[in-house]
Order: sequence, then structure tokens, then C-alpha cells
Amino acid sequence: MEKRILDLISENKVHEIRHELVEMNIVDIAQVFEEVDKHQLVKLFRILPKDMAAGVFSYVPIELQQHIIEYITDVETKNIVDELFFDDAIDFIEEMPANIVKKVLKNTDENMRKLINQFLNYPEDSAGSIMTIEYVDLKKEMTVRQALEHIKRTGVDKETINTCYIIDANRKLEGVVSIRRLILSDEEKLIGDILNDDMIFIQTTGDQESAAMLFKKYDLLSMPVVDNECRLVGIITVDDIVDIIDQENTEDLHKMAAMQPSEEEYLKTGVFTLARHRIVWLLVLMLSATFTVSIIKKFNDVLESVVILAAFIPMLMNTGGNAGSQSSTLIIRGLALGDISLSDTLKVIWKELRVSIIVGSILALVNFLRIYYLERVDVMVSITVCATMFFTVILAKVVGGLLPIAAKCVKLDPAIMASPMITTIVDAFTLIVYFSMAVWFLGL
Amino acid sequence: MEKRILDLISENKVHEIRHELVEMNIVDIAQVFEEVDKHQLVKLFRILPKDMAAGVFSYVPIELQQHIIEYITDVETKNIVDELFFDDAIDFIEEMPANIVKKVLKNTDENMRKLINQFLNYPEDSAGSIMTIEYVDLKKEMTVRQALEHIKRTGVDKETINTCYIIDANRKLEGVVSIRRLILSDEEKLIGDILNDDMIFIQTTGDQESAAMLFKKYDLLSMPVVDNECRLVGIITVDDIVDIIDQENTEDLHKMAAMQPSEEEYLKTGVFTLARHRIVWLLVLMLSATFTVSIIKKFNDVLESVVILAAFIPMLMNTGGNAGSQSSTLIIRGLALGDISLSDTLKVIWKELRVSIIVGSILALVNFLRIYYLERVDVMVSITVCATMFFTVILAKVVGGLLPIAAKCVKLDPAIMASPMITTIVDAFTLIVYFSMAVWFLGL
Repeated sequence: MEKRILDLISENKVHEIRHELVEMNIVDIAQVFEEVDKHQLVKLFRILPKDMAAGVFSYVPIELQQHIIEYITDVETKNIVDELFFDDAIDFIEEMPANIVKKVLKNTDENMRKLINQFLNYPEDSAGSIMTIEYVDLKKEMTVRQALEHIKRTGVDKETINTCYIIDANRKLEGVVSIRRLILSDEEKLIGDILNDDMIFIQTTGDQESAAMLFKKYDLLSMPVVDNECRLVGIITVDDIVDIIDQENTEDLHKMAAMQPSEEEYLKTGVFTLARHRIVWLLVLMLSATFTVSIIKKFNDVLESVVILAAFIPMLMNTGGNAGSQSSTLIIRGLALGDISLSDTLKVIWKELRVSIIVGSILALVNFLRIYYLERVDVMVSITVCATMFFTVILAKVVGGLLPIAAKCVKLDPAIMASPMITTIVDAFTLIVYFSMAVWFLGL
Repeated sequence: MEKRILDLISENKVHEIRHELVEMNIVDIAQVFEEVDKHQLVKLFRILPKDMAAGVFSYVPIELQQHIIEYITDVETKNIVDELFFDDAIDFIEEMPANIVKKVLKNTDENMRKLINQFLNYPEDSAGSIMTIEYVDLKKEMTVRQALEHIKRTGVDKETINTCYIIDANRKLEGVVSIRRLILSDEEKLIGDILNDDMIFIQTTGDQESAAMLFKKYDLLSMPVVDNECRLVGIITVDDIVDIIDQENTEDLHKMAAMQPSEEEYLKTGVFTLARHRIVWLLVLMLSATFTVSIIKKFNDVLESVVILAAFIPMLMNTGGNAGSQSSTLIIRGLALGDISLSDTLKVIWKELRVSIIVGSILALVNFLRIYYLERVDVMVSITVCATMFFTVILAKVVGGLLPIAAKCVKLDPAIMASPMITTIVDAFTLIVYFSMAVWFLGL
């Protein structure tokens, strides 16, 4: 399909292109736009019927949005901004450089301008910043018939009519009613009698992650957003929540791999930006790791007399790091999903302690069989290595379980207490235990 | 609220409890159930009005579902199963032991039993296994008015009426129409004239992850599921997709931390199960790491003559591991979100190569300043360490970027090519480079 459109474009068959495009899903059209040469983009965009143009616009990447706005007329700009859903318009304006924002604002009426400015002031990642204002509001005194007529008149501009919101004269939220309830109810009933007043809502300043949690917990399709006097100001829809869940997961993953989180796609991010996102943590962790240098230097005598000890250091540290990052990953994820809370700290430690004793024993045993029987390493060295293995695994798992919770306690993101951080901490401990054991078992 | 209910329960005030419960959200009631003593659970469950009981039932954890079914009568069981949405019923039956499944199936009619059996046969993680059969189907020949009347008559048992599905006499899917479109359209129009035939659908055997991708891409609220003759057999709703996105993310995270993925909550998983999920990969990685033991042994002479070299091994390996896991995390996530595909392999390598040269140079330089100027390490040793650092970072990043893609090529989950695996591979390389450089620079 895309291929065909691209062919038509190169042959400049405007009529056929239009014919094809109107049959397509706007998401797929947006994808075709990404493939097209930039100088053909605006031409192609103008072929689109007006009612599809805004939809397609909201799905193309930011740089193409910018390119389009730069090349179209003021009237066309106004048309697009008017047709865009309000939350899509805000998303787009937030990302644009000043000259584009100016062009857009110039082409909107004063009320709209005020509203846009208000929305741009909501803190990043707040519920307010992701809500839309195109919802259906009803009054308690309406009958179901009146409500449905109201929806028929106004629904075409709303982002969703699946849930309607009941407000009083001061716009205070009084309840919600689903379109399903409306359709299945007797037409003469009053909205006040069928509304659901056990509402799940969030304040504009609430965190988007909390909003996502509520959507998941209550299986919502949309959620009202209120100001601090409980007046309805907007709604959040589930399609935006799905994006936020992915975004938050990506952010956590980036942090867990010791990078600055970024929302940009990998292939679209420049080399220097990628390097900048990575270098800070690498430097911090490298400099922390130099602590291990001092430890080994301190035990230089031990190492000089039994050089073979050095051979097992990588394996011990590796295993410790892996054991620790298993635990920290489970706890970080549990905290993120709300399965684990701060009050579970003792349960977590107790659980990790028992798991680590089982796992540590097996690893130490297998390792002993291997290095003593297969590789014929000296028995005392073998014991030193395996005892260190056992204690390293225990410490790694307890620390790995504890640190994410500790981070949460002091309001840091638990995700930073993942593999790289745990490894660096466990490494130092492993070396101290290892050399101390060596001194003891080998009588150095 | 929950506290208050618990108090009422301990005071055995049945009437007040009922009064409180009917005002509550079923998700919150399910949460109260989790707090209640098991012997009071069934009593409390019986207090619920029949229409709420099934809803609450679908939100309580599996072990409580099992407990409830064990203690209620056959008639009550039948009532619950009849009232449950079909996908919730399937989820529940899948998790139950044989005696409970028997009790449930005994209390359903034959058609239902056949259907349940059919659903239980869909492969795990397939679209078929998460779909529901309670959707609204319409015919092309209906007018909008007839369609709305049909929905009024049948809608109460449907999981959603927000999107309706148009099928022909052979149940072949012909299009979809949203309730919004129905309400906003002229009542005399034919469904055939307003339906949308550019449908996004999936086959029963399709992967649930692919279904989730389509939901995200097209911002869907529900999606039809068809058999291999394109006959409509069910629909998937977005609330289940939200759970699947979280599930898939958790699975990826577990794999990335070298664990067997599990859907169970951490606190509800037994110590032995946790240990079992962790030990296999730890053993594999530990045994792979013994490769490093042989390398160090091979370079024993080098190490014996310059013992100080051992001091830098942990720091080098650590930094290599961190650099590699940054890259692998970005690529694994990019592949999972569909931002990166196999055809981008060369772009990824080229990008990682450039990023790693920048990052590697900075790390090597900082490290040199620190160990040569601050710690006054011998200049040739310092050069050896820093040159190794530079090459390790480059290799780590290129391997970290490449292996997840390679895994995808051979149909393995890219997530296993995360930090632990990369670290193990990079460690061996680091040691070889390190000692070879030492031989060269130090003239050993």
C-alpha cells in the first residue's frame, strides 16, 4: 500500500493519490509521510481532505510537523490547529521552536491562546499536561433523552463520548455516566438518578504515573481531571495512558542501565546526545570502582605470594553482580507496579536472605566441584574462592533487595539502584571478603 | 473506608456492611476481601448483591477465587460463572486446580462448556487466549435506529458497546462502527453506509504482543479477533492490553536481569520458586565466567612480574560491563517498541562505534589523569590501563548493540542479551586485551 502511494507520488498523480489516501487509516498515512521527500511533503499534505489533515498531522514526527507548519499559509495553520484535539495541539506546541509557536498562536483566537498558555504552564509529567478539554459535560437535571440530544449536537468535536461528566453550575464534578448506561437507560430518567458518584479522578498537578496507576487499577477508559476546588478542567484518555506506561518503563530501563532517561527514539538521537546521556554515569561508576584498586593494592602482599588468587576475581565479581541485579530488578519492578511498598522492607530482606542462602550454597558447591576436582586447584584456595562466593551472593542479594527500597525512602527513583550501582558496591565487598578469607585460610 | 468495613465485619453488622459495599467500587471491595480473614470471606461474599459479586470475584487474587468457589454451593457457582465476563471466566478457570474446574464446568450448560474448552485450547499468550465473546454484532442492512435498538436489547451483557462489529451471514467480519458514529448519524442511515471497513484485526493464533503493538499504533479501545477464515470470534479490550504491556515489560526486565520470567508478584512467590528462577542463569554465567580464570592463568607470568596490574582488573571489567549494558538496553528496548528493526543493524553498529569512541576517549583520559597524576602509577602501566579502557568500551558498546539484534535474527528474545550476558563476554575480551597490551607496553 505504502509502496503504491510512493509510486503515485513520483508520477505526480494527484487525483489518484487523494483517492488512495481517503481510504487509508490516518496512522498509516502518517507513516507514508515519513517516507516521502521533504519537498513533496507539503504538497502531499495539501491533497488530504481537511478533516483528515489534522488527524494525520497529529501522528507525524515532530520534525515533519515543524516542516509542514513552516511551509503552509496562516489560514491552513489555523485550520489544522482548530481541528486538532486539544491535547495533541498542546503536545505539538510544546515541542516547537519559538517562531513556529508564534505562527500558531497568531492564528488562534484569544480564548484559545489563553487556554494554550494555561496548559503550557502545567508541570511536565503532570496530569494537567496530558489532559484534553474536549469532553462531554451534562447536568443532573437533564433527562437521558436530553443528554443524548446534547451529545448528538456537540459530540462531533469531542475526543470521546464514551464517558460523560456531570457538573454543577460552578463546574464542580458531580459524577460520571457511561454512554452505555445512557443508551441502556429509560429515556425519561434523570441523569441525576443514573450517574455514578463514586468517581476516580485526579488533580491537574497530580503525577501522570499516578494517573496511569489508577487507570490500571480500575480498568478505566478515561478519567476526569479537576482543579483544587474539584472543578472539572479536562479528561485523560486511555490511549495517552498507554503511551505513558511505555514511556515510564523506558525511563526506568534507561536509569537501570545507568543512563540519563530520554524519550527520543534511539535511531533519531544524535551521537553526541547519546554520548552525553551515557558518560556521566560511566564516569561516576568508573571513579567509584577505583575504590577496588585501593583494596587490591592494600592486599598486594597476599596477591604476590599467591598470584593464582587473581584468576578468580573476575568470576567472583561477575557472579556477585548478577546475583545482586536479579534482586534489585525484582524489587525495582515490584515498587514500580505497586506490588511492594516501603512497609514490606523486612519481608523483602528476609526473603532475599533465604533465597540467597539457597542460591549461594548451590553456586559455591558447583564451583568447588569444578575448580577443586576438575581444575585441581589447591584445596585451601578452592575453599577460599567458594566461601567468598557464598558470602558475596548473600550480600549481593540483600543489598540488591534493600537499596531500591532505601532509595524510595529518601525519595530517589529506585531504578537507579540497579545492576551497575549494585555491582560497584558488591565488587568492593567481594574483594575485602576474598582477601581476608585468603589471609585466614591460607595462613598468610 | 476499608478500615470501616473491617470494623463492621468484626462487629458482624451484616446490614451495614451491605449498605457500605453497594456504594463502593468493585476494585476497592476486592481489596477489602484481601484483608479479611479467610473464614469470613465467603460470608462477606454472600452479602454482595448478585450483580456485583461476579465483578468483585474477577478482581480478587486467584487463591481467594479458589477459596470462594470451594465453599459456595453449585447454584452460587453457576450464578457467578454466568455473570462473569467470558474472558475473566477463562482467566479464572485456567488458573484453577482440576477439582474446581470440574465444579465450574458441571455448573455451566453444554454450549458454554464447549466454548470454554475451545478457549482453553488457544495457545498461551495468543490473541485468542485474551479475547472475550461479549461484543455487539450488527448487520449491514440494519438502519442506525435498528442498530441502536438492538444494542439496547442486548447491550447489558456485553463487555463493551463502544465499538460494534458488522458481520455477514457467515459471521465474516465486514467492518466496525463506533457507538459515537451511531449516535451522531442520522437514524435512517444504513449501517452499511457508515461502517469503517479499514479494520485493524488479529487472528486468534496471533501473538498478544502483536495485538498490544496494534493497540498502541492505532490508539484502539478494542480490536476484533478472527479465525483463519476471517470470521469474527471475539474481541480484545484495551484494559487487558494495558495489563499485557506491563506483563511483557516485566518479562523483559526479568530476562534482562538473567532470570526466568514470572508473572507472579514478588511477595506472593515462594522462596524456592524465586531461587529456581534465578539459579539456572547464575550457574550458566558463573561457568562461562570461568573462562576468565583460564585467561588470567595463561598470563600468570605477566601478572607475577607486575602484580599491580591485577589492581585495575575490576575497574576495567566494571566499566566495560556498564558501557555494554547501556548499549544493549537501548537496543533491546528499541526492538521491543518497534523503533529499531533488523534492517537497522548497520546504522546501530555505526552509531555505537561513534558513541563509543567519544565515551571511551573521555573515560580513558579521565582515568589516565587520575592514576598517573594523582596515584602516581608507572606511566607505562597507566597507558596500558587506559588503552585497554578505550578498546574495552568500544568493543562493549558494539557487542552490546549487536547481540540483541543477532538474537532477534535467530528468533531468540533480544532481552537475554542484556547486562549479565554482555558483561560475561566483554570481561574475557578485556582481560585478553589488557594482558596483551601489558606484554607490549611493558616489554614483558
